[in-house]
Amino acid sequence: MNQNLKKLFETETKKVDEWLGKLLPPESAEPVSIHKSMRYSMFAGGKRLRPVLCLLAHEICGGEGDKAYPAACALEMMHTFSLIHDDLPCMDDDDFRRGKPTNHKVFGEAIAVLAGDALCIHAYGILGSYVGLPIVKEISSALGTAGMIGGQVADIESEGTADVDAKTLEFIHIHKTEKLITTSLRTGAIIAGADEAKLAAITKYGQGIGLAFQIVDDVLDLTSDTATLGKDVGSDLENNKATYPRLYGIDKSRAEAKRLVNEAKDALALFGEKGAMLRELADFIVERVN
Amino acid sequence: MNQNLKKLFETETKKVDEWLGKLLPPESAEPVSIHKSMRYSMFAGGKRLRPVLCLLAHEICGGEGDKAYPAACALEMMHTFSLIHDDLPCMDDDDFRRGKPTNHKVFGEAIAVLAGDALCIHAYGILGSYVGLPIVKEISSALGTAGMIGGQVADIESEGTADVDAKTLEFIHIHKTEKLITTSLRTGAIIAGADEAKLAAITKYGQGIGLAFQIVDDVLDLTSDTATLGKDVGSDLENNKATYPRLYGIDKSRAEAKRLVNEAKDALALFGEKGAMLRELADFIVERVN
Repeated sequence: MNQNLKKLFETETKKVDEWLGKLLPPESAEPVSIHKSMRYSMFAGGKRLRPVLCLLAHEICGGEGDKAYPAACALEMMHTFSLIHDDLPCMDDDDFRRGKPTNHKVFGEAIAVLAGDALCIHAYGILGSYVGLPIVKEISSALGTAGMIGGQVADIESEGTADVDAKTLEFIHIHKTEKLITTSLRTGAIIAGADEAKLAAITKYGQGIGLAFQIVDDVLDLTSDTATLGKDVGSDLENNKATYPRLYGIDKSRAEAKRLVNEAKDALALFGEKGAMLRELADFIVERVN
Repeated sequence: MNQNLKKLFETETKKVDEWLGKLLPPESAEPVSIHKSMRYSMFAGGKRLRPVLCLLAHEICGGEGDKAYPAACALEMMHTFSLIHDDLPCMDDDDFRRGKPTNHKVFGEAIAVLAGDALCIHAYGILGSYVGLPIVKEISSALGTAGMIGGQVADIESEGTADVDAKTLEFIHIHKTEKLITTSLRTGAIIAGADEAKLAAITKYGQGIGLAFQIVDDVLDLTSDTATLGKDVGSDLENNKATYPRLYGIDKSRAEAKRLVNEAKDALALFGEKGAMLRELADFIVERVN
């Protein structure tokens, strides 16, 4: 990772974590167990990619001050909610995430289900209190059955299918991952009051890196090891999941990720030099597998 | 149930169901399974108590037209989301609800978890599109860890505890049930532009019937049969749950429900004759066990 980008992530992760610390219910509030469980997963070493995307989009669209932080935190809560439910025994049944035992392994399944629910509800509470109605709409459509949840369903249903076609695979990737990534960027841009041209550029960028990100993730599941990845590797293969490398092979997957990232970078042309950091970030996404 | 009230429920249930039919994603939309699962539980014979409370409060606070229906539908989706998750094997592990197999029994656990999530997200999408920010806040605080989810956690954690004290029991009842009932009423009142005095009266009424409703539910779990109740009876006892009759006995529980309902009716004084239907509804709640 480029030094400037690394520094940015360090600074913003710290700031987002401070905001999260304040926006999440305190661990001491009753019932203690659910608040512990929520905070456990929220502070389990996430990359804060979605908050950073939101904050960067906010900045390059002319947004000022700390206005985008509550939304950035809400997006990270939504993402974490989806991970907790995704890891459940009835879903992907994963024991580790980011090198730590998954939520249900520590707190039990019931609390894990409720902690996911609570993070989702709490994130909406933040949008209702500090952000605004257009963002409530934007995020709901990215998360619902026409978005992330739809992708998870298709993903589960693809398991064990002998042949996964390209159309299904694209549906899964776009819905499961790309939509929330694009919405994270769009949220920052909307809060900054971006005009239509800027919003369209940001959206195109998100679609490129969002899809590339999922392809890279699938490749890493095959090529990395548990220590580096912090979660079980090979679980996609084990679960007979629809993945890019399964359909196209590793080399073609890498090439496709690279192509998408270049397309994403091109979409930022109208931002000129201000888009430098988002371009770096796009490069970083494919770097992980090249 | 009084004839006027019965007629009102029939009319409003039909209207709410029509709205729900339009507001929920069509069953034919991809992925079909999740939309089937959402609609299965939404149209499984729910009493539509929360929508009716919202609509009645809207009306007696001077609200006009169909303005409260989207919020009423969102409240029912939130309620159904909580029931689907509550019935999961890792939670209450119930096989029947309203005389029909529970969601996970029909669609499997993974889809049931995701259908609950999707209903919650979709409900927020409706609030974002048709309702407004104050209601997003209001409902989030009723549902989160300071509300319904907090109550579910305390409920689960009380299972198997030898002695449940009165304080814990009250915490569970208030959070698990009363908060969403009160918020249903408050939502209708807020949409109608109710002043503070009316909002306070509606809130007090909700607190009374909300608590009474849960007490009655606990009594019915002991005294009714599966056919009448449409769900497994005695499951609270089986799960060693904290309930009112367990702590105070059935007679005292009935008396307390009656007292709460009378208090609720008194709170409606400032609405005069306009409060008649809400008073009938309060009576109906205790009638079920008397």
